[in-house]
Amino acid sequence: MTDLPPAVAERLKRSADGLVPAIVQEHSTGEVLMLAWLDDEALARTLETGRATYWSRSRKEYWVKGETSGHHQRVREVRLDCDGDTVLLKVDQEGAACHTGRHTCFDADLLKSFDEDART
Amino acid sequence: MTDLPPAVAERLKRSADGLVPAIVQEHSTGEVLMLAWLDDEALARTLETGRATYWSRSRKEYWVKGETSGHHQRVREVRLDCDGDTVLLKVDQEGAACHTGRHTCFDADLLKSFDEDART
Repeated sequence: MTDLPPAVAERLKRSADGLVPAIVQEHSTGEVLMLAWLDDEALARTLETGRATYWSRSRKEYWVKGETSGHHQRVREVRLDCDGDTVLLKVDQEGAACHTGRHTCFDADLLKSFDEDART
Repeated sequence: MTDLPPAVAERLKRSADGLVPAIVQEHSTGEVLMLAWLDDEALARTLETGRATYWSRSRKEYWVKGETSGHHQRVREVRLDCDGDTVLLKVDQEGAACHTGRHTCFDADLLKSFDEDART
């Protein structure tokens, strides 16, 4: 039983385990910070409080981003994609978004970059 | 059997169905365009060709973005996150990224926006 507005709950297409991925983007810079997971309750709490709240698949519990690290995410916008199966959160990020201490979870590992003209 | 470099294949953490989500971001604007899915083969093809190539969960086939629509995604960077379970593709987007004709899949459906001071 969640407080997710019915109009939202109806549009949401969840995976087999009841989750949708949430892309977290920094509002001011446009940087993609991380990917997290929402169930109905986490989305309802995020919409209600404006504090990014996720479902941890490994710990099997809700977590409010920043609750232990202090690196809060204050939500500016919550968007749903055309298929209803992905959420985009635009946030104000306090401190590092990544648990490694980096600003984003994508800073460290560049698999490949392409020159503009070197692509087939 | 794919041509995915072993160093990448080792770091990749796939879901139970062998997939990782790929966040697709426009290189020039920073806009988040869409979320798609990669298996090892799709990632290998993307790294090899520089053309964004995904696994369609509904059609159960590979698709090169733009092959039917003409709305190609030329890859500029491929990044892996700190946990190895999400890919970030920075692309040059030709035309609309969304099959609805909108520039991004997140343009149409704003669930909520917060004033900077109205958050708890």
